[in-house]
Amino acid sequence: MSLLEIPQTPLLAIDGIKLYACDANIRYQGRKDLSLIELHEHASMAAIFTQNAFCAAPVQLAKEHLQKRQAGEKSYLLINAGNANAGTGKAGYQTALATCELVAKRFDVKATQVFPFSTGVIGQALDVSKFEQAIGKIASHDLQAESWSDVAQAILTTDTCIKAKSLEIEIDGKPVRLTGIAKGSGMIKPNMATLLAYIATDARIEQALLERLLKESAEQSFNCISIDGDTSTNDALVLMATGSSQLEITKDSLALEQFRAALHELSIFLAQVIVKDGEGATKFIEIRVQGGNSREECKEVAYTIAHSPLVKTAFFASDPNWGRILAALGRAPLDKLDIGKVDIYLGKTLLVKSGELAESYTETLGQEEMNKAEITVTINLHRGDSEAKVWTCDFSYDYVKINAEYRS
Amino acid sequence: MSLLEIPQTPLLAIDGIKLYACDANIRYQGRKDLSLIELHEHASMAAIFTQNAFCAAPVQLAKEHLQKRQAGEKSYLLINAGNANAGTGKAGYQTALATCELVAKRFDVKATQVFPFSTGVIGQALDVSKFEQAIGKIASHDLQAESWSDVAQAILTTDTCIKAKSLEIEIDGKPVRLTGIAKGSGMIKPNMATLLAYIATDARIEQALLERLLKESAEQSFNCISIDGDTSTNDALVLMATGSSQLEITKDSLALEQFRAALHELSIFLAQVIVKDGEGATKFIEIRVQGGNSREECKEVAYTIAHSPLVKTAFFASDPNWGRILAALGRAPLDKLDIGKVDIYLGKTLLVKSGELAESYTETLGQEEMNKAEITVTINLHRGDSEAKVWTCDFSYDYVKINAEYRS
Repeated sequence: MSLLEIPQTPLLAIDGIKLYACDANIRYQGRKDLSLIELHEHASMAAIFTQNAFCAAPVQLAKEHLQKRQAGEKSYLLINAGNANAGTGKAGYQTALATCELVAKRFDVKATQVFPFSTGVIGQALDVSKFEQAIGKIASHDLQAESWSDVAQAILTTDTCIKAKSLEIEIDGKPVRLTGIAKGSGMIKPNMATLLAYIATDARIEQALLERLLKESAEQSFNCISIDGDTSTNDALVLMATGSSQLEITKDSLALEQFRAALHELSIFLAQVIVKDGEGATKFIEIRVQGGNSREECKEVAYTIAHSPLVKTAFFASDPNWGRILAALGRAPLDKLDIGKVDIYLGKTLLVKSGELAESYTETLGQEEMNKAEITVTINLHRGDSEAKVWTCDFSYDYVKINAEYRS
Repeated sequence: MSLLEIPQTPLLAIDGIKLYACDANIRYQGRKDLSLIELHEHASMAAIFTQNAFCAAPVQLAKEHLQKRQAGEKSYLLINAGNANAGTGKAGYQTALATCELVAKRFDVKATQVFPFSTGVIGQALDVSKFEQAIGKIASHDLQAESWSDVAQAILTTDTCIKAKSLEIEIDGKPVRLTGIAKGSGMIKPNMATLLAYIATDARIEQALLERLLKESAEQSFNCISIDGDTSTNDALVLMATGSSQLEITKDSLALEQFRAALHELSIFLAQVIVKDGEGATKFIEIRVQGGNSREECKEVAYTIAHSPLVKTAFFASDPNWGRILAALGRAPLDKLDIGKVDIYLGKTLLVKSGELAESYTETLGQEEMNKAEITVTINLHRGDSEAKVWTCDFSYDYVKINAEYRS
């Protein structure tokens, strides 16, 4: 169970999507670990995959199938937890393809209409026979529009809680829903290939716009988090729009702005709860960098601080050890950083003013901020108008414990 | 005490250099913490300083004084442990200058002939009165050519052992000596600004060549190590050549090759013992990357693996968790890496062949390698002729303990 509060709210069905989760015994016993999401034929779908060069077999195949996806075709997302089918070479690719073919046969579609996703241990062969049995089981039941919670549970590996949220808003007088589910726990779990997220809406959004919205949204949410700086071989984020509601989102409309805001809210929620349930996390930390020359350089600075083991252990100890933040900032890959202009705030407490310890700062003020479970560090570089935020967690004994003892 | 073996051998005096270390009570009680190294007027001297934009006051001043250094002038290196005089702004700069002036007055030289170095806690004002007393004490004694061990001890902060070595070799029938001392313990200590190293030789080497030799040597040694990826605000590496021996090292000579080899041997020794005495280190790990397009990209790959908390915790657990090495490699910032060409060895055990788990690999073989205290990981990218090595340590409970509990 995460030490940080993770809100749980009921999930709303999305018209045009049916789901089912079952127990396939892939790695875990006595729990659901295989999910199928069916997307009706009028939906659009966009996805973003891991940048890791060692990307897993299902990622390769899902990418290929997405390129071949045609309008007017149903789609099936097949997600297993417990085995990442990563580092498994050509055999792993064939296995992933075989699981797609099993779904295709049972549901009478082409294999290219099936999108495989795997999360779990790296480097172990996936047992196709377990998929065969389980997919038979799924096909013999009716998929359900209400099964989002089941699937949100079934995609987890060592996550300690469900990560999911629904929004219902009204745009142009028409109701529109968004439901998203995710799994995380580390950017890479101990031998686990991690982040998966699926967001669906019943709005109608054409393909190019959907892709743009997904990219924008990921840049502000899932691409702003880090547990330990490691990037999984299996990361995938999918956005689906069924078009079942009366609302169509088009370019340059007012509706677009409202929809985008809702999508960002949902994405940021999911991204943040992944951090809060990070391995061994006891603190949630937002690092805001302002006054940079570009969003990119602000993000570089924020990630340099977010990845510093010394900064992260100081947060774990609730220690206002500002020298570590300062030293991490100083090694960020910035061109011609003028330290004499930098201000740093811990919460609302001014820590560093123009590159020097602020006169108003006291250890007591710093300690008060560090004792909080959620802490914001704000850095102003005073050299431009750009800014960025990154969310991370602290680095605890339990992080080492979880990652050192995983296989023993 | 480090868990890894760190050889201790007697240190040789270098003609042209005298030293003294005394107890100045700067932070530590009952131990020597202030050192003065006197370099005679015929010596050349080169230095490399931290790349951290938040560089400390003594680093700024030492850089300025080095630029003003004139041939035929004595030089004095003033080194204190316990307070880094970093993050102290303009006042810190004035304090560093004041300490130089104290030495200048006592030894009747210009303040620009004094080079200040500080290591220790960041963000605390340096007490000049403690320097005044201690420098008076030093001036009332004769500096000694034999005091290298005293100084090697006095520059330490939370290091658990002296890091020092001497070499005596014969070049062109003439004896030549090298003596080096260093301190480390983390690239940044908990609130400590860390790496200092001083290497001296009695060979005669003119300034431009000395600078080149230092750069080359650092690139192969001190710039190949990492404890935690953090870079100190106070790092400094100094190479001094007194010219007291009969040997002159000149460009393009055979003597140069022999001297360079000795300098590299000494630098690599010091760099490696800094890693072995890294915070909480229980394993020493060499990461070799071969077959890259450039030395730079090989180093990028090696550092990406060396900095991965998941790889480091796996080493701590002696866990042959090759998926983590593979995943870290996959996120290294390389252009167009073809995973299908990559081979990875753990010691002499082939782990990954052409991007897939090697058929000959067994968990037993991997476990045997991981049980060793010193482990080599070799990665061949098979896309060029360049290679690089990086040395690092594992990531243990004690790393978190040391860095979380330092100020409590």
